[in-house]
Amino acid sequence: MIQLCIVGSVAIDSVETPFGNAENVLGGSASYASVAASYFARPGIVGVVGDDFPKQHISLLKKRGIDLRGLQVDPQGKTFFWSGYYEGDMNVAVSRTTCLNVFERFSPIIPESYRNARCLMLGNIHPSLQLEVLAQMIDPHLVLCDTMNFWIESALPELEKVLSKVDVICVNDGEAALLTGELSVPRAAQKLLKYGPSRVIIKKGGHGVAMFGQDTFFSLPAMPLAKVKDPTGAGDTFAGGFMGAVAGARTINENAFRKGIIAGTVLASFNVEDFSLRMTSKLAPDQINERIAQLREYTRLPRFIVKSN
Amino acid sequence: MIQLCIVGSVAIDSVETPFGNAENVLGGSASYASVAASYFARPGIVGVVGDDFPKQHISLLKKRGIDLRGLQVDPQGKTFFWSGYYEGDMNVAVSRTTCLNVFERFSPIIPESYRNARCLMLGNIHPSLQLEVLAQMIDPHLVLCDTMNFWIESALPELEKVLSKVDVICVNDGEAALLTGELSVPRAAQKLLKYGPSRVIIKKGGHGVAMFGQDTFFSLPAMPLAKVKDPTGAGDTFAGGFMGAVAGARTINENAFRKGIIAGTVLASFNVEDFSLRMTSKLAPDQINERIAQLREYTRLPRFIVKSN
Repeated sequence: MIQLCIVGSVAIDSVETPFGNAENVLGGSASYASVAASYFARPGIVGVVGDDFPKQHISLLKKRGIDLRGLQVDPQGKTFFWSGYYEGDMNVAVSRTTCLNVFERFSPIIPESYRNARCLMLGNIHPSLQLEVLAQMIDPHLVLCDTMNFWIESALPELEKVLSKVDVICVNDGEAALLTGELSVPRAAQKLLKYGPSRVIIKKGGHGVAMFGQDTFFSLPAMPLAKVKDPTGAGDTFAGGFMGAVAGARTINENAFRKGIIAGTVLASFNVEDFSLRMTSKLAPDQINERIAQLREYTRLPRFIVKSN
Repeated sequence: MIQLCIVGSVAIDSVETPFGNAENVLGGSASYASVAASYFARPGIVGVVGDDFPKQHISLLKKRGIDLRGLQVDPQGKTFFWSGYYEGDMNVAVSRTTCLNVFERFSPIIPESYRNARCLMLGNIHPSLQLEVLAQMIDPHLVLCDTMNFWIESALPELEKVLSKVDVICVNDGEAALLTGELSVPRAAQKLLKYGPSRVIIKKGGHGVAMFGQDTFFSLPAMPLAKVKDPTGAGDTFAGGFMGAVAGARTINENAFRKGIIAGTVLASFNVEDFSLRMTSKLAPDQINERIAQLREYTRLPRFIVKSN
């Protein structure tokens, strides 16, 4: 039985950054998210690949214990392919090629064995497909939704319908601003909470992450990395780590969400240190625990009370 | 005996923001910093005003217990005057008028009674004047230096000399990037540490603050404020709160610096909620303690250890 159903893209990427390049490597939101989640819970993927999908990518996912019964193989075409590069401070990916291929006609089918998974992650796909997925699940305890500028601009009504049906909205600061018209992160979060989710997570890249509830707020810095080799997949890795920790928690409450933020932050920090899933696919639990301990020290507040004069 | 000597501007400001305006109010880096510091230690100001400086501004500073023996009154001119406004997300102040007036010929003289103060804050003035101040002090335990883009661009050699003589460099992310050519905050901090300070503090506005040492890192979020009324003086208030808490600490160590970051963050959060020093000049210790407790809850990490599969 899986604990976490992850719907998203499974892709082949070619990426170039100031620190090197990687050709035809495993990519896609569901790949990044499921590998990150696999350290904390049992995830299953819902996605599609073509007849060209390399066996070693399948075996990488299987080695991480990821359930692939929901991964369709479409023999009529090729796998989603993306190539692009980063320059300077690597904040923005520049696309060279985007071939949706079999992903263009992807219709998500949730396998029987996934339908009562405890948690559902709606990765960055068309909001209409996200709604189809939601309709097939049997009352998941927690649903997270990711999205991107493209859907905010081209499919806002459907996206708003999705946002009104999920428990956690997870976006970056740029997407939050575009969705709400608010550049202030706290004000954008307040507006997003009005769609009805219990938590709004705003990813701020090197500035870390902020999580807002109706009466709660949690902030965690990013690991202070001097060298980022490839930021591709950092957001998906964060969301996957988050959902993995939540899906694996005994009770889903504020503490579980905070563990999720910690898990996502740590996995994303490993992700950007190498291309593709090279780093995140072969971590030892102690490597993760070491970074959790570092984050704990980085955010430790000493006792401090101001006395009256 | 003062514990903290603060050198900087004392000004009269007229400010307009989307939330209102304030005419001829108290401003200047030394005013903001000393008021913030006054909740944690006994500060004294070194600065200059003209013959027009309103008595109520003097009494505001005196009420906060700030030593004014270092505040020169230049009868030959008027007080430094600045007027400006903020628009949109209020990230950048647009100047309407900047009249340096008596500040143009300001030559800092440290009163005898300030010279062996425990701590020194070199507010944002010409680096040559900062060097003159340093030369007049008798071996302060801790010196913090603030600066701005203008001096980075027009007086870099003198500024670099200052940076090599201080214990704490406190700049915002834009200034850090301009000084080092690094957009990455951790990389900019690494370069700034090479000047020799024990700590580099990088203020990131709504994203909070990061403090780097050779082997230490501390990060604290900003208070998640939905409404910012006037950001003027937030950076000076932060630095003043920081230095006040450090100057008032029993031992100057990592914990004292962290208390400083907390004090600066809390005072800056009050500062932006109203114009000028209206909010920060009349806080009760319990208001400060309440926000410290909130920050503690906002950054509380639950216990979380990943077990081997």
